Amino acid sequence: MFRPEIKVVDCTIRDGGLTNDSYFSLDTVRTVYRAICESGVDYVELGYRNSREMLAPQEFGPWRYSDEKQLRNVVEGIDPRETKVSLMMDAHKSDPKDLLPAEESVADMIRVATYVKDADKAVRVCNAATEHGYETTINIMAISKEGPPKLDEALQQFEEETQALAVYIVDSFGALYSEEVHYLVERYGMYVKSKEIGVHCHNAQQLAFANTIEGIIKGANYVDGTLYGLGRGAGNCPLELLLAFLKNPKFKLLPILEAIGSKIIPLREEIDWGYHIPYMLAGVLNQHPREAMAMMADKNNHDYAEFYKRISDEDAD
Amino acid sequence: MFRPEIKVVDCTIRDGGLTNDSYFSLDTVRTVYRAICESGVDYVELGYRNSREMLAPQEFGPWRYSDEKQLRNVVEGIDPRETKVSLMMDAHKSDPKDLLPAEESVADMIRVATYVKDADKAVRVCNAATEHGYETTINIMAISKEGPPKLDEALQQFEEETQALAVYIVDSFGALYSEEVHYLVERYGMYVKSKEIGVHCHNAQQLAFANTIEGIIKGANYVDGTLYGLGRGAGNCPLELLLAFLKNPKFKLLPILEAIGSKIIPLREEIDWGYHIPYMLAGVLNQHPREAMAMMADKNNHDYAEFYKRISDEDAD
Repeated sequence: MFRPEIKVVDCTIRDGGLTNDSYFSLDTVRTVYRAICESGVDYVELGYRNSREMLAPQEFGPWRYSDEKQLRNVVEGIDPRETKVSLMMDAHKSDPKDLLPAEESVADMIRVATYVKDADKAVRVCNAATEHGYETTINIMAISKEGPPKLDEALQQFEEETQALAVYIVDSFGALYSEEVHYLVERYGMYVKSKEIGVHCHNAQQLAFANTIEGIIKGANYVDGTLYGLGRGAGNCPLELLLAFLKNPKFKLLPILEAIGSKIIPLREEIDWGYHIPYMLAGVLNQHPREAMAMMADKNNHDYAEFYKRISDEDAD
Repeated sequence: MFRPEIKVVDCTIRDGGLTNDSYFSLDTVRTVYRAICESGVDYVELGYRNSREMLAPQEFGPWRYSDEKQLRNVVEGIDPRETKVSLMMDAHKSDPKDLLPAEESVADMIRVATYVKDADKAVRVCNAATEHGYETTINIMAISKEGPPKLDEALQQFEEETQALAVYIVDSFGALYSEEVHYLVERYGMYVKSKEIGVHCHNAQQLAFANTIEGIIKGANYVDGTLYGLGRGAGNCPLELLLAFLKNPKFKLLPILEAIGSKIIPLREEIDWGYHIPYMLAGVLNQHPREAMAMMADKNNHDYAEFYKRISDEDAD
């Protein structure tokens, strides 16, 4: 599937940071940054730019705030080639006053993560980033919990009130099947006419890569992945699978493979992301992986039947 | 996706046996059998019925031959409910003289695995099984290496010369994308008009479950899975994902979850199936996972770039 309009965003450090409270070593972040630049991927997301006043700063590592000094330490001495730097700002946990003018920043793009209910906050942050000179996107989280009419209203608002380049479908819970991805891309397309559509998928049901493909087939042109699928719970769409599928000659797989071998595989000693039954069950039930992560913390508990009954019952409450 | 015509086949013991040369304990096989019967899955495949004269018998465990005495030990005292027992015979490694009449056998169905080039052998074994009173299917392996006109001829032959209930698309290398699954289901449908179409997928690119869904959407009614995806290399379509998707009220997830927790998870101490970069690369290159399995045997080798260059070069030879 070679379509030159497709933009790939690596969010290993940003979304992968939800596995370790954004405590990556500078060496790991630099290795990922270099590999992404060498691979020709369009954007590399080097963390969140969330507010130290709105989050407890002592709880999180540097890539939850990714201030400019940190970012300069990452990029120093590395040729970015064609790759741009992205940051994510949570609409409800960030403050536009933390943004420098784009020409003074390492970052090129701000992606605003939001729930439908926070659409007004998202517009405010998005427009502030635009005024500061950044490219922007709006990423609607937990999309499997949303639908018309509120979703339609939010899409219309983003279309009319922002300069975002893309509005994303974010399947935070890994709950969507391909037919639902098709539906959502079509639904987005009814309102988001001057912008691109993005897809960001999670892997609870082993569908992150497949659903990303389905989004692309339906016309989505912004797609996300992480190295080896690093991400909370079952993880994300693996970037290496995505690049191999896209077959765009500008993408190189070898730098990605090297970074996975040297910096991502060793993380497995501390972080157990990937397919596991508790995450699968949370995805099937369209739930946040919170309870599944709690179960996974007890490595000797494999009583999945009890877990399923318990979280199904909570659903029924 | 609730379509009553869909038949689900669990092949944990049969295809999972390629991870351990078919050396499962009787206790494990009985637990899987009981769980599948309780879950309402249509068929449970309790191994291969291959020929001891054509394979070296000392190299393989009992579930490569699954003789009737073994099978009776499995099913004794367990209520099968609606579940039937299947065995697989490799067209080029089995001998119809190893078949008892169906009414004297624990097995109800014989699935004949074949390559396109062995179509005549497959017809012979399939018809022998039919004459012995078994239900049959024909499973075309390594389908990602096949295409018209030879594939068409084989499909026509299976349609005209056998009583098979279904002819399967077997993506042995996990190389197919959804559009190729769609193509193959349509192509099969041009020839296989009196029988059902089946899909059996592997997970090298994390697409086994997704491609099984895509097969179902296009009309395939025989679908395979294994508990927790147990299978060679990256494994198979996980049965638990498939049942949760199908939403047929006759299927029960809890017995499956219990068997995974008690008997499949412990296998992970010896067998490392699932998504790994070497398997992914073999899938991307449409290769047998043989070389990837050799690389995986060295647990400290994560030089994926070197591996990719090497197996790509072999492709070019």
